[in-house]
Amino acid sequence: MKIDRIGMIGLGIMGRPMAMNLIKANYRLGFYARREQSLEAFEPGNVERFKTPRELAQNCQVTITIVSDTPDVKEIVSGPDGLIHGACEGHLVVDMSTISPGVTRVLARQLQDRRIDMLDAPVSGGEQGAIDATLSIMVGGREEIFNRALPILQCLGENITLVGTHGAGQVAKACNQILVAQTMSAVAEAFLLAKSLDVNPEKVREALLGGFAYSRILEVHGRRMLENAYQPGFKAELHHKDMGIAQSSAREHGISMPGTDLVSGYLEKIVDSGEGHLDSSAIAKLILGQTNKP
Amino acid sequence: MKIDRIGMIGLGIMGRPMAMNLIKANYRLGFYARREQSLEAFEPGNVERFKTPRELAQNCQVTITIVSDTPDVKEIVSGPDGLIHGACEGHLVVDMSTISPGVTRVLARQLQDRRIDMLDAPVSGGEQGAIDATLSIMVGGREEIFNRALPILQCLGENITLVGTHGAGQVAKACNQILVAQTMSAVAEAFLLAKSLDVNPEKVREALLGGFAYSRILEVHGRRMLENAYQPGFKAELHHKDMGIAQSSAREHGISMPGTDLVSGYLEKIVDSGEGHLDSSAIAKLILGQTNKP
Repeated sequence: MKIDRIGMIGLGIMGRPMAMNLIKANYRLGFYARREQSLEAFEPGNVERFKTPRELAQNCQVTITIVSDTPDVKEIVSGPDGLIHGACEGHLVVDMSTISPGVTRVLARQLQDRRIDMLDAPVSGGEQGAIDATLSIMVGGREEIFNRALPILQCLGENITLVGTHGAGQVAKACNQILVAQTMSAVAEAFLLAKSLDVNPEKVREALLGGFAYSRILEVHGRRMLENAYQPGFKAELHHKDMGIAQSSAREHGISMPGTDLVSGYLEKIVDSGEGHLDSSAIAKLILGQTNKP
Repeated sequence: MKIDRIGMIGLGIMGRPMAMNLIKANYRLGFYARREQSLEAFEPGNVERFKTPRELAQNCQVTITIVSDTPDVKEIVSGPDGLIHGACEGHLVVDMSTISPGVTRVLARQLQDRRIDMLDAPVSGGEQGAIDATLSIMVGGREEIFNRALPILQCLGENITLVGTHGAGQVAKACNQILVAQTMSAVAEAFLLAKSLDVNPEKVREALLGGFAYSRILEVHGRRMLENAYQPGFKAELHHKDMGIAQSSAREHGISMPGTDLVSGYLEKIVDSGEGHLDSSAIAKLILGQTNKP
């Protein structure tokens, strides 16, 4: 199917630069946005605004959604004014939000019943990755549909993996989030131990970067922790939401993940204390708060 | 001071290839070894055996120790037949074992009182790193002494960092060990979540390697976990010992490290079940044991 226009729902920190990259690649875009202001960044000639997801889907061949949470995607896809009521057969919905793998599977089935295709394609890499088009994209869905979407995804990211069938992208993202959060906590404990024993954590970080303890978190977020620089980046409140997705999936499947639970508790504390707007590496503030040493 | 001979105490999995690398670099070696067999790997012309650490120290200018645990190093350095009783002024003790930072500081002071120099210089990188002379070496001590030892250390490793004063090398090593163990646990939880939701953890690993979740542990030990390949590597029982060093240091300084405690518990279970000879990434067996899915 020829792509005449791509629909885009979600013009937040991530969605806006992603839309810019699609425009740069000469795609015509259509938007559904609740607030008029969301469109101010775009030249009027490039984009068209539609009143509902249904109307947007009627006028596009592909719709990309990148919104905050599971209920938002449910409403956009299958709510009273949802995409599902406007999209033609063969329309492709690419959900790049981070939401529940279980709900993703349900939505994919509902869409499939109307012969509408879906990919779950959550991303990692943050605002900078969205701007630079270097996002990691974890995809779930059918291979044939993945291949159809690939030229579009390649305008947005670099490391694009088909992980498995519907929901597998969301599962990979959940795995990513629990791994990242736990590594942050581990790095912070290491720095706490160093400080408490009067050793410069910066020198420890330097020594550890060359060996088996190397992680991108030690490199990037380790530096943030040492500089006490917690402007986001990726907000603690969003990371907390993502941990919740992983934890409910774990509960549904009867497994326990005590490391995940521990770190999710840190993120909850940050959100509860009104600092959920900080970068999620701010969990180090809680851990390092145990010592007064510099 | 001219180095006529380097003394070496500890010819285990790590010490033996390290000694070989020193011989390759044309250093003359002297050994103190409890068992005659430890010397069988070496050509008789290259090495000389001494009966006690004291006698060894009398006949060397530098002594390298790389043995199992804190009490071993204490005995070798300051026991009745210890190095301290044989070494001349300006002798340099380089302890490459992984032991207590606190005891290291005490030993360094005792040696300093006799004008004997000491560096703590624990390593990371395992048997392969010892063989290939690519070890990471984390050093504590005075800069002048570090510079004196550097040509020797460069025969053994690649990433050599002076972290701080006496004990700082051991602190960095403790940080390394708690970081590595916690990352292993986090990777295993991610794989558990993927398996439970019927997603191939190999594909998840692949998708995550390109983003912020990247760690050497995900890359190297993640593969071990997926292949169920737990031959060491680095034995769980040694990692457990190292976690104990970090935990007692934390207790002494009144800090809590719940992530470290959690993972140390896994290592204890492995040791208690008689599998302490496995690679320490075998903690994944405990975590993944919650699911029967392939």
